[in-house]
Amino acid sequence: MYYVLGIDGGGTKTICLVMNEQRQILGRGEAGASNYQSIGANAALISIESAIKAAIEQTGKIQVQAICLGLAGAGRSKDIEVIQGIIRDLQQSPNLPIEWILPNNIIICHDALTALVGGIGNDVGVVVAAGTGTIVFGRNQQGQTKRVGGWGYILGDEGGAYNIAVAGMKAAMRAYDGRELSTCLVEDFKNQLGLESIEDLIEVVYRRGWGVREIASLAPVVDNAAVNGDEVAREIIDEGVRELVKATRVVVTELVGDDFEIVTVGSVWKAKSNIRKKFMESICAEFGNVRVILPRYEPAYGACLLALKQLHFS
Amino acid sequence: MYYVLGIDGGGTKTICLVMNEQRQILGRGEAGASNYQSIGANAALISIESAIKAAIEQTGKIQVQAICLGLAGAGRSKDIEVIQGIIRDLQQSPNLPIEWILPNNIIICHDALTALVGGIGNDVGVVVAAGTGTIVFGRNQQGQTKRVGGWGYILGDEGGAYNIAVAGMKAAMRAYDGRELSTCLVEDFKNQLGLESIEDLIEVVYRRGWGVREIASLAPVVDNAAVNGDEVAREIIDEGVRELVKATRVVVTELVGDDFEIVTVGSVWKAKSNIRKKFMESICAEFGNVRVILPRYEPAYGACLLALKQLHFS
Repeated sequence: MYYVLGIDGGGTKTICLVMNEQRQILGRGEAGASNYQSIGANAALISIESAIKAAIEQTGKIQVQAICLGLAGAGRSKDIEVIQGIIRDLQQSPNLPIEWILPNNIIICHDALTALVGGIGNDVGVVVAAGTGTIVFGRNQQGQTKRVGGWGYILGDEGGAYNIAVAGMKAAMRAYDGRELSTCLVEDFKNQLGLESIEDLIEVVYRRGWGVREIASLAPVVDNAAVNGDEVAREIIDEGVRELVKATRVVVTELVGDDFEIVTVGSVWKAKSNIRKKFMESICAEFGNVRVILPRYEPAYGACLLALKQLHFS
Repeated sequence: MYYVLGIDGGGTKTICLVMNEQRQILGRGEAGASNYQSIGANAALISIESAIKAAIEQTGKIQVQAICLGLAGAGRSKDIEVIQGIIRDLQQSPNLPIEWILPNNIIICHDALTALVGGIGNDVGVVVAAGTGTIVFGRNQQGQTKRVGGWGYILGDEGGAYNIAVAGMKAAMRAYDGRELSTCLVEDFKNQLGLESIEDLIEVVYRRGWGVREIASLAPVVDNAAVNGDEVAREIIDEGVRELVKATRVVVTELVGDDFEIVTVGSVWKAKSNIRKKFMESICAEFGNVRVILPRYEPAYGACLLALKQLHFS
């Protein structure tokens, strides 16, 4: 009996699953953030080790023959070197009751791939991830891949929660100035944040140490305003949908479209303003045999499948 | 003979002028940044004191009857309290050979007002400031004022260098993804920053500790591309012009337009891609007796005039 570890490392938490060759999950552990670019390699190592340890507690000592780590932004060779260092450290760790048998069975990949494989249950299809940021990633039967977006809150992330929130705040300031249509977003942001004047958004956004995540958490203000019929908010939401459709179109077309599953993952899809419905209508109108699905499994499950696949090839 | 001090406090430097009642400049001093929101009240105090000291070295010991400080973002009452504390400290300072005679002649104002008064030479007109960020501010004969923009790099600053640079980088990523028209900006940013791949913009923008100013310094890449005929870059520049025109229109209209001088200040107006010319054409086509001028004096000069005016009223 052999086992693999699948790890999903993100900006808020790290999840580790233990899977056997029958694709059965035997253990699951969670720990804190492991996006090493923000928190440093050592803190990432500690989170990953904790998640593994918590998962192994449910299995007892095991032999691990392959490990797959999906980590946010792990695309570049420099990143991969750092993460390989982390795995070497893991294999030396006295805290883990694991017998490592994985000379070459170490897979380090972008979290979009693990989200795709987990979401669909195999490694062919397209994932449209729209949380704080956005990325569209696809892989076809021939193994060709295509990525669009995922460039972060300054360079891209169109259609993501951060962008929606910022567009909403900008629209509020423009209405307040008299530059654009009036919108209930002015009052909505004031109420949401307990501000006397919308000018105090400056205090909130620049001076309270708010980061991308905190700003993104205001996206529901725009979503709710859109649901309540505010034209400006609705246009922001529709623009987000158009961006997600556009990015998806490029990926599907490049992989020689049709007959794909597209899995939607991330908080934006849970919006009340029908973002997912509008996205599905656009995509299905454009492509014949594309099906838009909800995730079947979590990304760490996808990481396990990728680890198993590596074993079968090696 | 009485004297006033006019101070222009910004994010890179602080300038102090000493003016007599004949509007003659008798001393000028420069020091480092004094935007207290970023660097703290104490560091701001040190810069302001240094600038005053350098100016007073050219005059010898003087009586100061009024002082005006124009500081970035000094609009809110909380800001004004902090700056009043700074001025109290200045009056206690043993380092300044000044006899302070200014119980009530202390003016603290937004740097847009000092830019307006310095740029035009009196306190009626409109200033269109477009540097890293943007703000349009006007004042009419009746003393009514109107401000549009100035909400910073996240909430606004449309038409400013930061926005132009970010729009250029986003366009490059979109072209690279295949989402939008191709543009020479991809190669231009790579060349400017010595990148192997445009994907390395992520390294530059998020991981090198770059701030707003550093990003804004890339605006000339877009400007040059526009000059060289790149359609995508030209559209970014034109969009910036449209935003500056729109903001100016609101201010001019609200102050019951016509017969104004509009002064343009800031680095964006020095762009090679005719931003200023396009702006002037739009504004002059729309308003009859509006004249667009270059600054007559610097903002610290405007601060002196405001200090003198206060004296004449008190």
